[in-house]
Amino acid sequence: MSHVYRLVISCPDQVGIVAAVAQYIAEQGGTIVEANHHTDQANGWFFMRHEILADSLSGGLEAFSEGFEAIGKAFEMQWYVSDSAKPKKIALFASKESHCLADLLHRWHEDELPGEVVCVIANHDDLRSMVEWYRIPFHHIPVTPESKPQAFSETEQLVEQYGAEVIVLARYMQILPPQMCSDYSGQVINIHHSFLPSFVGARPYHQASERGVKLIGATCHYVTEVLDAGPIIEQDVIRITHSHTIDDMKRLGRDVEKTVLARGLRYHLEDRVLIHGNKTVVFAD
Amino acid sequence: MSHVYRLVISCPDQVGIVAAVAQYIAEQGGTIVEANHHTDQANGWFFMRHEILADSLSGGLEAFSEGFEAIGKAFEMQWYVSDSAKPKKIALFASKESHCLADLLHRWHEDELPGEVVCVIANHDDLRSMVEWYRIPFHHIPVTPESKPQAFSETEQLVEQYGAEVIVLARYMQILPPQMCSDYSGQVINIHHSFLPSFVGARPYHQASERGVKLIGATCHYVTEVLDAGPIIEQDVIRITHSHTIDDMKRLGRDVEKTVLARGLRYHLEDRVLIHGNKTVVFAD
Amino acid sequence: MSHVYRLVISCPDQVGIVAAVAQYIAEQGGTIVEANHHTDQANGWFFMRHEILADSLSGGLEAFSEGFEAIGKAFEMQWYVSDSAKPKKIALFASKESHCLADLLHRWHEDELPGEVVCVIANHDDLRSMVEWYRIPFHHIPVTPESKPQAFSETEQLVEQYGAEVIVLARYMQILPPQMCSDYSGQVINIHHSFLPSFVGARPYHQASERGVKLIGATCHYVTEVLDAGPIIEQDVIRITHSHTIDDMKRLGRDVEKTVLARGLRYHLEDRVLIHGNKTVVFAD
Amino acid sequence: MSHVYRLVISCPDQVGIVAAVAQYIAEQGGTIVEANHHTDQANGWFFMRHEILADSLSGGLEAFSEGFEAIGKAFEMQWYVSDSAKPKKIALFASKESHCLADLLHRWHEDELPGEVVCVIANHDDLRSMVEWYRIPFHHIPVTPESKPQAFSETEQLVEQYGAEVIVLARYMQILPPQMCSDYSGQVINIHHSFLPSFVGARPYHQASERGVKLIGATCHYVTEVLDAGPIIEQDVIRITHSHTIDDMKRLGRDVEKTVLARGLRYHLEDRVLIHGNKTVVFAD
Repeated sequence: MSHVYRLVISCPDQVGIVAAVAQYIAEQGGTIVEANHHTDQANGWFFMRHEILADSLSGGLEAFSEGFEAIGKAFEMQWYVSDSAKPKKIALFASKESHCLADLLHRWHEDELPGEVVCVIANHDDLRSMVEWYRIPFHHIPVTPESKPQAFSETEQLVEQYGAEVIVLARYMQILPPQMCSDYSGQVINIHHSFLPSFVGARPYHQASERGVKLIGATCHYVTEVLDAGPIIEQDVIRITHSHTIDDMKRLGRDVEKTVLARGLRYHLEDRVLIHGNKTVVFAD
Repeated sequence: MSHVYRLVISCPDQVGIVAAVAQYIAEQGGTIVEANHHTDQANGWFFMRHEILADSLSGGLEAFSEGFEAIGKAFEMQWYVSDSAKPKKIALFASKESHCLADLLHRWHEDELPGEVVCVIANHDDLRSMVEWYRIPFHHIPVTPESKPQAFSETEQLVEQYGAEVIVLARYMQILPPQMCSDYSGQVINIHHSFLPSFVGARPYHQASERGVKLIGATCHYVTEVLDAGPIIEQDVIRITHSHTIDDMKRLGRDVEKTVLARGLRYHLEDRVLIHGNKTVVFAD
Repeated sequence: MSHVYRLVISCPDQVGIVAAVAQYIAEQGGTIVEANHHTDQANGWFFMRHEILADSLSGGLEAFSEGFEAIGKAFEMQWYVSDSAKPKKIALFASKESHCLADLLHRWHEDELPGEVVCVIANHDDLRSMVEWYRIPFHHIPVTPESKPQAFSETEQLVEQYGAEVIVLARYMQILPPQMCSDYSGQVINIHHSFLPSFVGARPYHQASERGVKLIGATCHYVTEVLDAGPIIEQDVIRITHSHTIDDMKRLGRDVEKTVLARGLRYHLEDRVLIHGNKTVVFAD
Repeated sequence: MSHVYRLVISCPDQVGIVAAVAQYIAEQGGTIVEANHHTDQANGWFFMRHEILADSLSGGLEAFSEGFEAIGKAFEMQWYVSDSAKPKKIALFASKESHCLADLLHRWHEDELPGEVVCVIANHDDLRSMVEWYRIPFHHIPVTPESKPQAFSETEQLVEQYGAEVIVLARYMQILPPQMCSDYSGQVINIHHSFLPSFVGARPYHQASERGVKLIGATCHYVTEVLDAGPIIEQDVIRITHSHTIDDMKRLGRDVEKTVLARGLRYHLEDRVLIHGNKTVVFAD
C-alpha cells in the first residue's frame, strides 16, 4: 500500500469545481492515484475523492491543507484530508457471537484492515481469550436494563480514553443510547442480519422464515437514533430454499454478515463513504 | 423433453410415505427421472414430487391415478398427477411496459416455456402489434375507476372462455378484485419490482432510492387479497450504486424482473411449486 | 437521457493531465455529469472519460474539439469526442438461435439501447420475420466452406453500405476472416457462451459438462484474429448442479448470454470501453 | 443438529431401487429427514442419499447395515452408512497464508464444521501460535526439493497416526506426491484460487490479470495425480474491474477462497459428495 493523502469533498454543484481542485493538486505536484466524482443531479450536490501520493507533495499535508482552504471556502465545501499513515482507531463492540469479531480481528492481524483496533468492549465475557490472543485490551461491561445508563457511561469513557474514532457493532445486540448515537454520528457502524429495510429489529431470520423469502441478506449501516434506519453502506444476499431451517439461515447468514461488515468498514476506514442526508455515496475501489 | 407424468403430494408427515409411494411407482413399472422430498419438521408436513416417464407406465395416467387413490387416502394426501403433454394454458395480463411480456412470448415461441399462451389481456392497446406477431389473441380491456367492476367481469369471462389455468400479471399495474384473487387462488402469478417484503405497493424503485439501498430486486409471487403479500416463488437482486438514478434502476431492474418472472412461472408450469400456508416449497431443477 | 458529449482519453501517465483537461472543460463552461479516471500504475498509462452536457458548451462540439487539440498533443493523448445525439450504427450478425438477437432488438425498440440498429445479416433465413417486424432490413447471406470468401466480401460490402460502426456477433456461429477482424479492430463484439478463458471454441457447454464445473458463464469480448482471445468487456456466471443436462445448461446459459452481451454492447455504445493491449478499461455506470 | 445416519448409494440405474430402499428404511421404522436422488441418464447411473434419524432405528446402525447388504448386492450398489455422531477426522495442511486455515479453525471452534480437526501440518512455522490457541497439535514439516520424499513420508505417518480421514490443503502450496494422491483418493480436498479449468497451476491471479477477466474465482476440488484437474466440489466468483491490482485480487479472492473451501468441505464431511468418474454429484442442503 502506498502512502497517500485522501482529499474528500462534498459541496453544492457548480461548474469549475473539478478544474479548481485538479489545478491545485497539480500545482502542488500531486500524483493522483485514484479519483472519483459524483454529481447528485436531483439534489444539485457534488462529491469528490482523490488519493494523492504523499511523497509527491513537497510541502507535506499541512501546507497542502492550508493552501486548499481558499478553494474550500470559494465553493462552500465540506472537506478534509486524511493520511493513510494515520489509520483510524477502532473500538469493536461485541456480545457472545464471535463470527464478525473473529473475522475483523483476523483481517486486522493480517494487515488487511486499514485501521487500528484499539480495544474490544463486550457485554459478555465469552470472547475474552480470543481477543487477548491478539493482544488487544478486552473490557467486559455487562448491560442490564438497570445498569444500562451506568454501563454506557463507562463505555463512552473507554472509547474516549482509547481515542477511538470508529465504533463497530460486531453483532453487539444492544441498542446504543440516543445521546451516544448523536455524539458519534457517522462514526458508529452496525451489521444488521437482514436485507434492510426488510426485517428491522429483533430476530430477522425468524421474520425472514415467516415471510418465506428466497434470499437472506445483511446490511452494514451507520447507526442513528432510529433503529436500523441509518444510512446504508453495503449490503449483500445469499440464496436459501424451503429446506433451510432458521439454524441453517443463521449459519449461511454469518458468512454474508462478516463479509458485508468487513467491506463496509473498509470503505469507511479509507474515507470512501460520504454521508448525505440518510444516504451514502460510496466510492468503492 | 421427455414425456413425463408429475406426481405431486403434500400430507402430514409420518413413517412409510416414501416407501408406499415408491413401492407403488415400482409396481407400475414407473421409471423415475426426478424425485424430490421435503419434510417441514417444524410443522410436521411432508412434500414430494416425482417425474415418471410416461412410456414406462403400461396402464397410462388414468390407471395410475386410480390405483394411487388408496395410498392418497391412507396418508391423508393432497395430491395430483399432471401430464407434461398437456401444458397449462396461460393468460398473460399486461399494460404498457413490454419487457416481461416480450420476454415470456419469446420464450414461449422458442419452446422454452412449458405452457401454452392462449391470450393476452391488456388495459392499454400499445402492445397489440407485438402480441399479434406471435399470432396470439390480444384483448384490450381498459380499466378506469368507474369501469373497474365491468372490466374485470369481462376479463374473467375471457379467462374462462380460453380455459386459462394460469394468469400471469406481466407488469399489469392493476390490482385484481378480491373475488378474482380467491377464485383463482394459487393460479395468479405476479412480478413485483422489489425485493419483498421491502417496498410493497407503488413505485418501489422510488422507495428504494429514498432508502438508499445498495441492491434492488424483484419478486415473483402468488397473488392473494393482501397486496404484495402472497407466497413468494422466486426472488433475485442486482447491485446498484449511488450513481444510479431511478431511471437506471428501472433499466437494470427490468432484467431482473423478467428473469425472475420467467423462472418462477416455469417452476409453476412444471408443478414444482407447492403452496403451504403463506410459503412455498419449490423443487427447483 | 441528457444530450452529452463524451470526451475519451488515454495517454502516458504524468502529473497535470486531470488539471489541464478539467481546466479546459471549465473554460468552455462545460457541465460535467460523469467523470472517470484510471491510472494503470504497472504500465504507466492513464485513462479518462467525461460526459459533458452538450448545452453547456456554448461553442458546440467542433469548437470544443478544435480547442482541445493542443492539450491532446501536449500529453500525447489518443482521444476523441463523441456525441450522444449521433448514436453508433450497429450491424447485427445472427444465425438460427434467436435469444440474443431478440433481446437486442427489443431493447433497441424500447429505446434502451443507445445505438441504431441498421441491419441484420444472417447465414440462415429463419429469423427474417422476427427482424422484419421491427422494420429492420434483413439480409440472408449463407456461408458454406466454398462460399465463404464470396459471402464475407458481400457481408463487408453491406456493412460499409449501411455505414455500420459496430458489428455484433449475436450467436453468429461463424468465424470472421482475419482481414475483417483487423479492418474492424475494436468494433466487432462477440458473445461467447463460456467463462473465458475456459472452454474456448466449439460447444463450450459440452466442455463444461465434461469438466464438471459448478458455474457456467458467458463472455462479451472484442473479436481479434485469435479465436475467443480478444479483450474481454463483460462476463457473468450462473450456478448449475449435477442435475443439469447440457440442454438445461443451454437454457440457463441463454439468460446469461443475452444479459452479458447487452451490458457489454451498451458500454461500447456509450464509449465506456477503452482497449489497451489485450485488456479493457470499462468505465461502467 | 439431530443424530442421524447417512445412507449413501450409487449404482447402475434400474426400476425399483427407490422402492426397495424406501421399503427397507420403513420396515426398520426409519424416519427420513432428508432424501435426495439423482439419475445420470446419459450414463445410466443412479445416486441416492438419505438422512435417517438415529433414534428411529430400533436395531441401531449395525443391524441396519447388515440387513441392507442383500439390497446392496441385488442392485450392485456401492454404498455405506455413516454416523453423524462420529464426525470425520481432519488433518489441515497449511503453509504461510492464514486466511483459509483461520476460517476453518474458527468454524470448527464454533461447532459449525461437522468434523474433528485432529492436527495441522505446515511447511512453515508461522501459524503455530494461532493453531495452538485452539489446542490443536501443530507439526512443522519443512519441504524442500531435497527433503521432499522424506518430508512426505513423515507427513503420511502423521496422518495415519492421527487417524485422519480427510486431508484439507488450506493453501498448502505444495504438490502432493502421486502415491499419496492415490492412497488418499477422494479424501484430499484442495482450494485452488481460480475458477478452474481457467488458470491451472501457479499464480492464478497473475494469469487472470494478464487475461483481463472481469470475475475471479475459487474452486474446491478433490486432489488427483493431475494438477488442479480432480473432481470439482464447489466454485464461486467475485466481480473485479480494471482498477483492481493483483494485490486487490488477492484480497478479494481470499474471501471467495475461504467460503468455497468451507462449503465444499462441509459437503464432504456430511457425505453429500458422490464422486463418479471425474465429476461429482453434490446433494447440497
